[in-house]
Order: sequence, then structure tokens, then C-alpha cells
Amino acid sequence: MFFRFSTSSSFSSFSILLPKPHIFLPFKSYTTSFSAQIMPCKLIFRQLFEKESSTYTYLLADSLHPDKPALLIDPVDRTVDRDLALVKELGLKLIYAINTHVHADHVTGSGLIKTKVPGVKSIISKASNAKADLFVEPGDKIYIGDIYLEVRATPGHTLGCLTYVTGDGVNQHQPRMAFTGDALLIRGCGRTDFQGGSSDKLYDSVHSQIFTLPKDTLVYPAHDYKGFTVSTVGEEMLYNPRLSKDKETFKNIMQNLNLSYPKMIDIAVPSNMVCGLQETKSDL
Amino acid sequence: MFFRFSTSSSFSSFSILLPKPHIFLPFKSYTTSFSAQIMPCKLIFRQLFEKESSTYTYLLADSLHPDKPALLIDPVDRTVDRDLALVKELGLKLIYAINTHVHADHVTGSGLIKTKVPGVKSIISKASNAKADLFVEPGDKIYIGDIYLEVRATPGHTLGCLTYVTGDGVNQHQPRMAFTGDALLIRGCGRTDFQGGSSDKLYDSVHSQIFTLPKDTLVYPAHDYKGFTVSTVGEEMLYNPRLSKDKETFKNIMQNLNLSYPKMIDIAVPSNMVCGLQETKSDL
Repeated sequence: MFFRFSTSSSFSSFSILLPKPHIFLPFKSYTTSFSAQIMPCKLIFRQLFEKESSTYTYLLADSLHPDKPALLIDPVDRTVDRDLALVKELGLKLIYAINTHVHADHVTGSGLIKTKVPGVKSIISKASNAKADLFVEPGDKIYIGDIYLEVRATPGHTLGCLTYVTGDGVNQHQPRMAFTGDALLIRGCGRTDFQGGSSDKLYDSVHSQIFTLPKDTLVYPAHDYKGFTVSTVGEEMLYNPRLSKDKETFKNIMQNLNLSYPKMIDIAVPSNMVCGLQETKSDL
Repeated sequence: MFFRFSTSSSFSSFSILLPKPHIFLPFKSYTTSFSAQIMPCKLIFRQLFEKESSTYTYLLADSLHPDKPALLIDPVDRTVDRDLALVKELGLKLIYAINTHVHADHVTGSGLIKTKVPGVKSIISKASNAKADLFVEPGDKIYIGDIYLEVRATPGHTLGCLTYVTGDGVNQHQPRMAFTGDALLIRGCGRTDFQGGSSDKLYDSVHSQIFTLPKDTLVYPAHDYKGFTVSTVGEEMLYNPRLSKDKETFKNIMQNLNLSYPKMIDIAVPSNMVCGLQETKSDL
């Protein structure tokens, strides 16, 4: 399925389209890149940090489209006003509020964004069983203008975890960028002991869906607790202290983490199952 | 003055050179960019965050030079081990530990880095009156391989504040990147009531040395307290709530901030005046 934002349609309409022909366009992008080739790109990109839960929110937009359509990946309820102010200042039209999974450590900003910016559609995986306006499955493409995100299923931290990867093509950002949620963190990974988690599944997900991407693919996780902002697939294959190991070693590591009960889980998960709207409604 | 790292010389030697002729090289860089043109670039770039003092440390290296010479801007003592581990994993040779100014909110990592990586040279402005291996002045260029930083004087937060700007040329990163220290923060600026601070000077510094750069120049500050990672000169000229105003308004804003006494200043400044070595020595 392709979700495409088009100038001629309202924000709520989508059309199923074949991939666009490759078009060479002048460079015009905010990007974090390890470029192995000279590639045209028109992506506006910002990484934003929420300090309390150490969550990264990502803003992506097509700078060359007349409406500058944009999406947010993993917005946090506390920082929605900051994010929307930035969207406005950069002259963007927010179309989608996307989650990589049902978070257990913070309340998603998706619901709050929808109350503040009419027309924005929330997106989550079908496998998450959470509520949202649109559900995506592996292989789907989410378009903003001519830029798209490819949907990859990376369960293991939760049942419904997705990794969103920027498109592959000459008018897409090079190198590719993987928004890995909690499946792959920089030199780490998400826990696997709640929400249908499985270390066995997580290992397979990362090795089959992320480590098969080009080594220069930029890894942008949902969290970082040590102050890293970006990594690459090649670096994580070499230096991730958990996922660079064989599967049995990985499973042993995950079984012996002895982590405490997630302090926000009983508030965050019920709220995030309804796209953050439970908390929002009680505030109204 | 040009500081140049060369394969044929030791890390401690420098030579005064004319600017290199422009050479077109294949793209190979970790960069955060708003590229208006297709430009070759070979910069390895990482932004790193120290959560307690909300400080950004920047790692830059020349990926095409055989030794991958690197520098760190504004390292923090607490995160030196993280930074040096990353330098090692990326296969870089750390040459310089650079400070934008004498920090009042954290102890610089420069001294500690020098004890851990022999040959690294600390750099600070001559105007800071602090100790370091090398002192730079406006107009100097600091080279790592073929990549250079241009030194600009931006006093006002402190007497000796510098902004380091990546080079201007086809084999330098495009757009340019300005490491503004505390002179210009994203939608803010450093306080001007200590360490020889002056709101009058800060206004002139930012307007004459930073706001005259191309509008797509990326602004990388020494701190961010709201979770922003990058801005542009154009954005700050429009949306900085202090520095987009006229000078008298700016001075009034700065005079009426009513900030509390900087809690780390009595520890950090004496230590940073000797490049962080005071604390290091007492630890030995």
C-alpha cells in the first residue's frame, strides 16, 4: 500500500500509486548523511530530543513540494508544542504523526497533535492492535510529496514494532535512514520482557530487516541514554554489544538484564493503545 | 595562521600553508546538511550530548585522509570515555580538543583527553587568557586533513568566545556549519552577566560574525535545553526571540533575565582556565 500526500487532494485522502520515476533534483535538504555518492535530495530533516524519557522525535518533510508536506515519527505528548512551533516556523504542512510502536515509557504526542492540527492522521502498525487513523504493514510506503518511508516489521521489543526506512532511489535521501524505534538502539536494543516481547524474534528482526540494509544506512533510534544521536548499520553490526553476538548469546544477555518494572508502563501503554487520546480526553 | 595536520609530520607539528586548491572529491561524509548545491564533501560528523549540563560535543574528521585526523569541539569531562571509544570505533586519530570558550557550567574534557591520548593538542582563544597548547585568533584556520575550521571572534557571553565555522570551498562541507558555543543558541543565547560578558558586544558579535554567514549555514550550539539539535542562520535571524530584535531591545532583555548564580561556575571556571587539568590533577 502507498500512502501519498498530493496537492490536489485533502490531507485525509490517499491514493495507491506505482513508485515514481527517478527524477534528478537539485540538492536542498536538512539531512544527516554519510553519502557515498553524489545524490540529489530534497529532504528536510530534524532530530528532536525529549529529555525525561530520552526519546527522539524525527521531523521529515519534502522541501521541494509546494506544500512542504511533513511527518513526525514518535512525537511525545510533553513536546508537542515545541514540535508544532518548529513545523510552523519551517513553513511545513504536517500530514502524519507516526509511531514505531506502542511506547511504554512516555505518552505519544499523536493524539494531542490531532487535536491541535486538524487533518493530521496518526499511523501505527496493524500488528500493534492499537487505535490510529491508518494502519501500516510490511512493504507499505508512506509518502510525503515525493519522499517516502518504507515499512519494515521488526517485532521483538513489542509485537507490533516497525522500522521506517527512507526510500531507495536517486530522488530519495542517500544514504538511507532507518528509524528503528526500540528494535535497534545505538550500541543497544529495547527490552524484550513486556508487551509480547521476544528476544528470539528481536534477533531475527534486526538481522533480517535492519542488518541487511546498506552498511552506510543511518540508524536513528527512538531513544538514546548516552548522548549519541546517530549510528550506522555497519557500526551496529560491528559494535552493538548485544546484536553483534550470535543468537543464543543474545538471548542469554536479554534474559539476564534484571531490569526493574518499567515505571511509566501502566500509564503509557493504555494511553498509547488509543494513540495518546486517553490522557488527552481526560484533560479536556 | 593555519594549523595543518599532515601525514608526514607528528601530531604536534604545524605548518603555515596557503589555502589548498579546490579539489572535487567523491561524497563520503557523515553530515547534517542543508545542501543547496551538489557539493563534494568528506567530513565525518557526529553530534554528542551530555545530559547533566545539556552540552553538545562535536566530532569532526576527514574520512578521506589516510589517518582520518579528527577534532572534538567542547568535550565534557564526564563523557570523555564515551567520546574516545567512538573515536576508536570509527578508526579516527584525534588531533585536537577545542573549546569555544571557558565554560562555566561544566568542566572541559580537554585536559582529561590529553592524559588519555598522548599527542592531542588543546586549543582555545588567545583572548580567553586560559591555558592550552595552542591559542587561536580571528582568521586562523584549524586543519584536519583537508578540512578546516575558520576562527571567528564572538565575544559577549565571555571575553574570549569563539565561533568555529567549517571552510568555504568546493572540497569543504556545504552548507557551512557554525559551532557557535554560547554566543548563539537555538532560539536563545548565552547569558552576559559573568566572565567579562557584555550584551552590547554579544549583539555585535552575532550580527557581524554569524548572521553574515549564508542563511543555510547550520548552527550547532554548545548547549540546548529544549531538545533541538540544529538550526540555521536564516532561522535564527527570523525566529531567535532575543537576537532578531534591535540592539536596545536585546540589551533590555539580557538585563532583565534575573538568572540565578551559575551553580557550577566556581568549580568549572578555575578548572577550565587550565583546560580542565586542575580537576584532573587533583584526581591523580
